[in-house]
Amino acid sequence: MTVTDDYLANNAQYASSFNGPLPMPPSKHVAIVACMDARLDVYRALGIKEGEAHVIRNAGGVVSDDAIRSLAISQRLLGTREIILIHHTDCGMLTFTDDDFKRAILNETGIRPAWAAEAFPDPAEDVKQSLRRIEANPFVTKHESLRGFVFDVATGKLHEVTR
Amino acid sequence: MTVTDDYLANNAQYASSFNGPLPMPPSKHVAIVACMDARLDVYRALGIKEGEAHVIRNAGGVVSDDAIRSLAISQRLLGTREIILIHHTDCGMLTFTDDDFKRAILNETGIRPAWAAEAFPDPAEDVKQSLRRIEANPFVTKHESLRGFVFDVATGKLHEVTR
Repeated sequence: MTVTDDYLANNAQYASSFNGPLPMPPSKHVAIVACMDARLDVYRALGIKEGEAHVIRNAGGVVSDDAIRSLAISQRLLGTREIILIHHTDCGMLTFTDDDFKRAILNETGIRPAWAAEAFPDPAEDVKQSLRRIEANPFVTKHESLRGFVFDVATGKLHEVTR
Repeated sequence: MTVTDDYLANNAQYASSFNGPLPMPPSKHVAIVACMDARLDVYRALGIKEGEAHVIRNAGGVVSDDAIRSLAISQRLLGTREIILIHHTDCGMLTFTDDDFKRAILNETGIRPAWAAEAFPDPAEDVKQSLRRIEANPFVTKHESLRGFVFDVATGKLHEVTR
C-alpha cells in the first residue's frame, strides 16, 4: 500500500458529498502563485472556496517562465484580474545554492540541468524581485491588483511585502 | 476593496486557530503535480493534511521544466518518494491551440512568447505523455510510485490513467 492508495480512498469519500460541476473561469477572478511547501494549504489559509481562484505552485513560488505561461492563460483566456504571490518562512529554497544543487546532480547523473534551481536567501526580498518579474513581463498585463506576501509557517499569518 | 483584501481577512481568521510550525519535509513523502484549475482543491480532493505533500500546480498540470525543477528539489532535498499527476475534465487547455494563443499575444503586444503554451486536446492522453516525460527525465529518479489521474469536475472523482 502506498500513500497514493490512501489518498484515493480519501477521494472516494470526498466525491460522495461533491456538488459539481462549477464553471471553468475563476469566480473571484484571482490567480495565486505560491510555493509548493506542504505546510501551505492555500485554499484554507486564504479561505478560498472551490471555483474561485487559480492556484499556481512550484518550488519557491518562483515567477518562472512556466508561472508566466500559467498567468498569461489565466488572465487572457479565463479572465483573472488579481495576482497574489506567496513565499513563506522556513522555505527549503533558503537551504541550498544553485551551484551546489546542480553540482550534486552532475556528480550523480553525469548531466548538469539546463535550468536554474532558483534558490534564494530571503523570502521577502525574493517576493520583491518576483513582483518586478511580473511588472517587467510583456505577456502578463491584465491585472488590476498585484500584491506579494510571506506566509509564516509558525503562525499561519500572511505578511505583506511592501515594494 | 479587492478580493485580495477579503482573502487577507479570511487569513486572520485562519491564523487565529493555527498550530505551527510543522517540519519542512513532507511527512507523507508525496509530491503532486496538478492543474491550476480553481475547481480542484487538491488538499480536500485527496484528503491531504497540512505538512504531508508538496503540491506543484500550473496551467494544465503540465510536466514542464519548472515542474521537473520542483520535483527534483522535492525528491533530492526533501525526500519525497511518490508522484501523483492530476489533469481534469473540462480543462481550459482543451479550448485553444498554442498557435492561436501565441498569435493573439503577438498581435496585441508585438512579441511572440518564446515558451510553448502546452495546450492539449485530451486530458487522459496528456497524462500518459506526462508520465513518460518524467520517466524520460534524468533528474527525477527517486520515486517508488508514479501514477496519473483525471479528476472529474462533475463528480469530484479521480480516475486513474493506465499506461
